[in-house]
Amino acid sequence: MGKALEDYEKLKERGKEIYTLASVLMLLEWDQETKMPIGGASFRASQIELLSSLTHKEKTSDSFKKALEKLIDLKTGSIKSDSLDERKKGALREFRTELLKDTKLPSSFVKKLAKANSEGTHAWQKAKNSNTFESFLPNLETIVELNKEKAELLGYDDHPYDALLDLYEPGMTTKKLDTLFGELKPFLTNLTKNLSNNKQDDNAFLSTFFPIEKQMEFCREILKEMGVDPQKSRLDTSVHPFCLGVHPTDVRLTTFTSATAFFTNLSAVMHEGGHALYELGLPPEDFGTPLGSYCSIAIHESQSRWWECFIGQSRSFCEYLLPKLQKAFPSELKELTIDPFTSVLNQVKPSLIRVFADEVTYILHIIIRYEIEKDFLSGSIDLKDLPKIWNEKMKDSLGIVPETDAEGCLQDVHWSFGLIGYFPTYALGNLYAGQLFETFKKDHPDFEKKISAGDLSFIRHFLLEKIHRFGRELPPLALIEKATGHPLSPKPYIDYLTKKYTFSQ
Amino acid sequence: MGKALEDYEKLKERGKEIYTLASVLMLLEWDQETKMPIGGASFRASQIELLSSLTHKEKTSDSFKKALEKLIDLKTGSIKSDSLDERKKGALREFRTELLKDTKLPSSFVKKLAKANSEGTHAWQKAKNSNTFESFLPNLETIVELNKEKAELLGYDDHPYDALLDLYEPGMTTKKLDTLFGELKPFLTNLTKNLSNNKQDDNAFLSTFFPIEKQMEFCREILKEMGVDPQKSRLDTSVHPFCLGVHPTDVRLTTFTSATAFFTNLSAVMHEGGHALYELGLPPEDFGTPLGSYCSIAIHESQSRWWECFIGQSRSFCEYLLPKLQKAFPSELKELTIDPFTSVLNQVKPSLIRVFADEVTYILHIIIRYEIEKDFLSGSIDLKDLPKIWNEKMKDSLGIVPETDAEGCLQDVHWSFGLIGYFPTYALGNLYAGQLFETFKKDHPDFEKKISAGDLSFIRHFLLEKIHRFGRELPPLALIEKATGHPLSPKPYIDYLTKKYTFSQ
Repeated sequence: MGKALEDYEKLKERGKEIYTLASVLMLLEWDQETKMPIGGASFRASQIELLSSLTHKEKTSDSFKKALEKLIDLKTGSIKSDSLDERKKGALREFRTELLKDTKLPSSFVKKLAKANSEGTHAWQKAKNSNTFESFLPNLETIVELNKEKAELLGYDDHPYDALLDLYEPGMTTKKLDTLFGELKPFLTNLTKNLSNNKQDDNAFLSTFFPIEKQMEFCREILKEMGVDPQKSRLDTSVHPFCLGVHPTDVRLTTFTSATAFFTNLSAVMHEGGHALYELGLPPEDFGTPLGSYCSIAIHESQSRWWECFIGQSRSFCEYLLPKLQKAFPSELKELTIDPFTSVLNQVKPSLIRVFADEVTYILHIIIRYEIEKDFLSGSIDLKDLPKIWNEKMKDSLGIVPETDAEGCLQDVHWSFGLIGYFPTYALGNLYAGQLFETFKKDHPDFEKKISAGDLSFIRHFLLEKIHRFGRELPPLALIEKATGHPLSPKPYIDYLTKKYTFSQ
Repeated sequence: MGKALEDYEKLKERGKEIYTLASVLMLLEWDQETKMPIGGASFRASQIELLSSLTHKEKTSDSFKKALEKLIDLKTGSIKSDSLDERKKGALREFRTELLKDTKLPSSFVKKLAKANSEGTHAWQKAKNSNTFESFLPNLETIVELNKEKAELLGYDDHPYDALLDLYEPGMTTKKLDTLFGELKPFLTNLTKNLSNNKQDDNAFLSTFFPIEKQMEFCREILKEMGVDPQKSRLDTSVHPFCLGVHPTDVRLTTFTSATAFFTNLSAVMHEGGHALYELGLPPEDFGTPLGSYCSIAIHESQSRWWECFIGQSRSFCEYLLPKLQKAFPSELKELTIDPFTSVLNQVKPSLIRVFADEVTYILHIIIRYEIEKDFLSGSIDLKDLPKIWNEKMKDSLGIVPETDAEGCLQDVHWSFGLIGYFPTYALGNLYAGQLFETFKKDHPDFEKKISAGDLSFIRHFLLEKIHRFGRELPPLALIEKATGHPLSPKPYIDYLTKKYTFSQ
């Protein structure tokens, strides 16, 4: 083995410890949300605190830094040996980027932030329950101030918001988002208006009673069809659906169930199933390095939205799904036919709550939050005006106004725990998926025939080939360009929505 | 705060880190046995290895040693400040004992042992399945040799076996066990003979079909009645029942279920429930020190056998249980009456397999293993003769001989993973329970009336007061003496069995 390769293997050993500690943290979180007796909550916080601090210590330790420095110049980012392959060079660049991020925030600041976020979350919950924005205002002020400080500590070239964006979606900037959203916003607002008056099919089946046990059995079957290996994953229930990849051999999915919301459950399972396939598709031999980890939050989201919307709500998938559903639930669904089934699943209607929004209006919800967050950072709005600003933006984009702040600017938990700069990843996930879908259609002109016949394995293979196997070899924008042959553009998503919603309805 | 108290609090902070890491390990084990997708096994081993090594590093770190040394002389064990209360002094002594144990085995030896145990377990599983003792013999030889070496490293005064005994039950010696077992063996052998010819009641209800869901519902109800707080615990299923106290606010129990073995399930749940009550009864304010931890393995076992046998199989508990059972399973159990019910649950009959043995023959199984293990250490037997020796001892004590080694000397997993010196804790648990039961009867002369009326809360209170609240303030023999007013003796257990099996039957 050459010297550089030897050093790389040593670095990887250290990386394995870090990633293994992080995987234990995930399991603690999974257990907390799914199995933990309620009385264990306070001790669980201590366990998580200790493991987080150990992980951080390992990630920022001198010995890890030295191991990395042997291979890459931490200041300039230039790689010290030419003998490593491109993949390993990518790993080193990502290792370095992560280290720089991890060391930029002094631990005293991180503690201050954690305290503000924890207090913020409590205050938000109360404010939301009692619909009193004013009671949350002081917390929001602190959080925004701390995020401004955070942006300064992290550094940026152009806009302070860029520092936060880069934290969640490396390489993303306000400049790029302004262009993307600038094209999307008028298109989506128009499309929403045009579709809102469409006749609505009978959607009673959405709220029919389906026994939960049977729902779960059906969902597990669908996961298997998607290619989610039951030997390497499990599905449980929790208050909010999520997916955690402990390791490519141990992935935990959850969904939320109600006897009268089967289709919400199924849609959540396909969404989390998309996340799960990504985690299961990461190369286990690279575990311990960025190459064995997902590329970015928005790339992750592209995988979940892909399965939830692009596949799960497509006509051809519905053609495959409906008979399967009718076999499992003959009495409940015998009358349902393919046209109303597909049309109800794809109903477009402006609504107040982001998480329940359809494919067309969803990104408008994100753009509203993006515009507001940018103003948070530049200080151009008075925070006490947030409810007013929120409602105006809702009216402009979606044509509706919430009656209460609980359904308005207080609806999402994110700001209360300091997550500013995160929302755009939800929109980007859809744009990435849209661009991938364009390539997919070209590569598989017969995809609709295959899907309606129940052959789904080629879909997983496509995503494995284009996205999963790379891990974090490349930053997200480079990965999308490599996968599709084009830099990121909103056009494929616009074309996808146009085709789906103006021709087929 | 005085200087000593300040130092104690600092030590406790370090202790909390160690115990918290250990608690995370427990959760990894719990998840592995109950929830983990099978494909995750290999990565789970890496997680456990890393956490074990981190825990060991913390436990034996110089900084922890120094924190302890401020309060207690590590060489002599003398406590450096008189201002601490007796409880804290006990904690220091136990901290020291643990540290000495943890540092006596060099890590190269620990690794060698781990390898031999892992290989031994694989070889034993194969040998047991194919009933070929010879194939396991080389592994057994290695394991016995390593245990001899281990005894030398740990040190002992009298017999090398004492070093191993002390590891699992501090203060226990071959000399003490020889006296205890010397009295018990002839008594138990005789009692077994006398009871073996008793007429057997119809035990068909033991193997009746009971739906598993309903079994579990019933078991959870019984746990609640015992005082196992469902907000701080949970019951799942696994291949072998166990109980892990992650923290006094988070205790995980498991049982094994089969639709035709409800009473085995119920008995396992009461056994694990006894362990759970102990863990739930430990003082949470002492978490991070030996005072917040259980006293010893055999004291733990006394709590489980207490609920499984002393309470669970008593006439008065049966009087409470039977109507409850008949209410839950009217069609299955309507014909059952109290006499045969109690008598079947307490049937005494020599059998080949320890884990299925009744209360009378159980300790005879342990004595056989004890005698053999002692000879392992002194080197007075040729290991290839083990099957012959085993069978002779079975014949002498229980009057039966296994037809295969799989049902004989290969039945237990313990030796294959190097657990020599552990078996006696199973017997001691019963003796401790017997002695506690004598005190319990004196303190609560009306206990039978209360139990048959379904009042169980005073039992938990008794155990809390006598055992749980102390944690590991005292070594086990001192704790039993404090709890009962007498040093450990086999007499209470002999009296208990005599009364139960010669008068009431």
